[in-house]
Amino acid sequence: MPVNYTVPAPDQLLPIAGVRLGVAEAGIRKKDRRDLCVFVLEPGTTVAGVFTQNRFCAAPVQLCRQRLVAGEEIRALVINTGNANAGTGEPGRRLAEESCVALAAMLGIAPAQVLPFSTGVILEPLPLERLVAGLPAALADLKTDNWHAAAHAIMTTDTVAKAASRELTVNGKSVRISGISKGAGMIKPNMATMLGFLATDAGIARPLLEKLVKEVADLSFNCITVDGDTSTNDSFLMLASGQAGVHFASESDAGWAEVKAALTAVAVELAQAIVRDGEGATKFITVAVEGGKTREECRLVAYAIGHSPLVKTAFFASDPNLGRILAAVGYAGIADLDVDGVKVWLASGADSVLVAEQGGRAPAYQEADGARIMQAAEITVRVDLGRGVASAQVYTCDFSYDYVKINADYRS
Amino acid sequence: MPVNYTVPAPDQLLPIAGVRLGVAEAGIRKKDRRDLCVFVLEPGTTVAGVFTQNRFCAAPVQLCRQRLVAGEEIRALVINTGNANAGTGEPGRRLAEESCVALAAMLGIAPAQVLPFSTGVILEPLPLERLVAGLPAALADLKTDNWHAAAHAIMTTDTVAKAASRELTVNGKSVRISGISKGAGMIKPNMATMLGFLATDAGIARPLLEKLVKEVADLSFNCITVDGDTSTNDSFLMLASGQAGVHFASESDAGWAEVKAALTAVAVELAQAIVRDGEGATKFITVAVEGGKTREECRLVAYAIGHSPLVKTAFFASDPNLGRILAAVGYAGIADLDVDGVKVWLASGADSVLVAEQGGRAPAYQEADGARIMQAAEITVRVDLGRGVASAQVYTCDFSYDYVKINADYRS
Repeated sequence: MPVNYTVPAPDQLLPIAGVRLGVAEAGIRKKDRRDLCVFVLEPGTTVAGVFTQNRFCAAPVQLCRQRLVAGEEIRALVINTGNANAGTGEPGRRLAEESCVALAAMLGIAPAQVLPFSTGVILEPLPLERLVAGLPAALADLKTDNWHAAAHAIMTTDTVAKAASRELTVNGKSVRISGISKGAGMIKPNMATMLGFLATDAGIARPLLEKLVKEVADLSFNCITVDGDTSTNDSFLMLASGQAGVHFASESDAGWAEVKAALTAVAVELAQAIVRDGEGATKFITVAVEGGKTREECRLVAYAIGHSPLVKTAFFASDPNLGRILAAVGYAGIADLDVDGVKVWLASGADSVLVAEQGGRAPAYQEADGARIMQAAEITVRVDLGRGVASAQVYTCDFSYDYVKINADYRS
Repeated sequence: MPVNYTVPAPDQLLPIAGVRLGVAEAGIRKKDRRDLCVFVLEPGTTVAGVFTQNRFCAAPVQLCRQRLVAGEEIRALVINTGNANAGTGEPGRRLAEESCVALAAMLGIAPAQVLPFSTGVILEPLPLERLVAGLPAALADLKTDNWHAAAHAIMTTDTVAKAASRELTVNGKSVRISGISKGAGMIKPNMATMLGFLATDAGIARPLLEKLVKEVADLSFNCITVDGDTSTNDSFLMLASGQAGVHFASESDAGWAEVKAALTAVAVELAQAIVRDGEGATKFITVAVEGGKTREECRLVAYAIGHSPLVKTAFFASDPNLGRILAAVGYAGIADLDVDGVKVWLASGADSVLVAEQGGRAPAYQEADGARIMQAAEITVRVDLGRGVASAQVYTCDFSYDYVKINADYRS
């Protein structure tokens, strides 16, 4: 049961002109579930992506990277669940390539214009024949108004499909954004991975989009953690079709700030949905660290808190266990941190309580205040390091019995 | 229930001439439990220690560091459980100092010759009066043959006391080593911490002991992880009384290698006992990484595997989930790792199986072999990075329902 999240209804997800989606049941791993999704992009659509830093990156990730670096004009995406094509070596790369060859032939484009994405069981060969056999049905299903189905077709152990849309007026034109994501742990090597696809009908020049995708990921998909593990297949792709009649080539272009903010907001929503659906999650936690010398040191502290099993079990227990939070701040890795300058608040909505300062419990802090906030389903841990002006946020969930149950019992 | 560990019987723990121990029930936090332990050292005993890197280090840790850096001749240790005196700021430092003043007055030594250690609830003032009131009983109990009682007196949430001894003949003399440790999670800020005390009747010059304590810690207490958290109070102290009639001033001295090896072995045993008693542990896991360019990169990989909640829940489930191990190797942080050169084995005793090579599952690997090994209570994950000759080991335990239960329900 996700924390405060349900997927928007189909009619709340906006079609993006120039981006058609089709889904099918290819039976790649299980029967009777949508497990294949194809994106077909009009010519002129720009594409940029960021991918897992895991050295065991999957075959499709390797192909995506090559094609984007080579500057290919991407015209289609093929996404399968049920098999991650990871840990499969050179044969895996050939199978990923052949899935692109098959889709390219059906669309009359070059194989290098197709990007492949896979998620599911690893260390197993991709069932290429079933995937290819499913492509005609996915192509027959192509339409711009298909984000809801696509969000479902990329699910693995997700308990809920994840999608978001937004519309804004920029330079007198309507600009639309739609996106989908999947993932429930940061990694499940059997049913791997975080995937995110974000499309807009604004036009964005490739160099600008390549810079944007890193900045957006840094504020969204790179700020979430369920269990600290990084998958072999993590991918986040942004698509800009240009069909809305507004085009951006530079950060100084009029309207760019609004479009960038809206794209970032949708990406944050999609990333947070993954945490809200985190394995066993019962609470959604924002760790907001400010007052650092650099963003990087703020991230260190935020991740130390967000990764600590002791902090996360305390949230599950609604226990305002300050010691665990302070200890995580202390071991995060800032060698010259003056703990006497650190302040910590617990907050839920407008209810905010200073819990620690000057190296220990805040004098005015009452345990009842902490206990009240810890009962909430959405909690913010705010930390002021008291040594600068940088900040960073991390989104995470609590750590419950069900996390262990899901990950100990799970074997697909 | 610890994994394959029971504390040795009292007569298996060897007295160390020059090191007397006394315990008492001071009622610092709970009634009817030994919670106070005093070490009294003969003049000439050398002392060296390593302490937590946590910036929120506790008041007694700060005092210990100061006194050891200042080169004080340490003559006594005072150790309490039930209160960690951490997150207590300047008042906490004064209370720690006053506990030393009280013990020093009773012993006729200077306060700076006493090292204080505390473990227990944090963010609460140290109940100094009760501690001081318990000192006469602890001093009345002083004897060299008291390691078993001392091991019990430093326990907090440990389910078993931890102690070890060894005797060897060096340069024609009998040399004895005894030690105790405590800890069950790497940190429990309410009932904090790992403590280790290791004494020998060999004489070891202070500079040599200071170098040794770092090396020994690096191979023992710094190689264990239960949940990746680092406590505010972690301390490891080595004492050398010199009463055995053998003295070492240099690493080239005859017999030093044997003494060093024996001290290291006892420290490893004490450190491993903490993991065996890890919260909720049902299995003891050794992660042995070899073939690295540096020891540091081997440690990175070993800790990535040893910290991964996904790997640890798979061990709990006896699931030979290779993907989770490979993924942890991949995200450990070696940027130029060639995954095709990585090999992974699972082993239990002499039963060893190559499970992964060349970026994926080993061709000859049968899941039944992995499943058989995963049933064992003691399992080794061996990783060859295939790029050098360095190695490192990390000891950890699995991650069970009970870990969450202990840490979610626990509030002292």
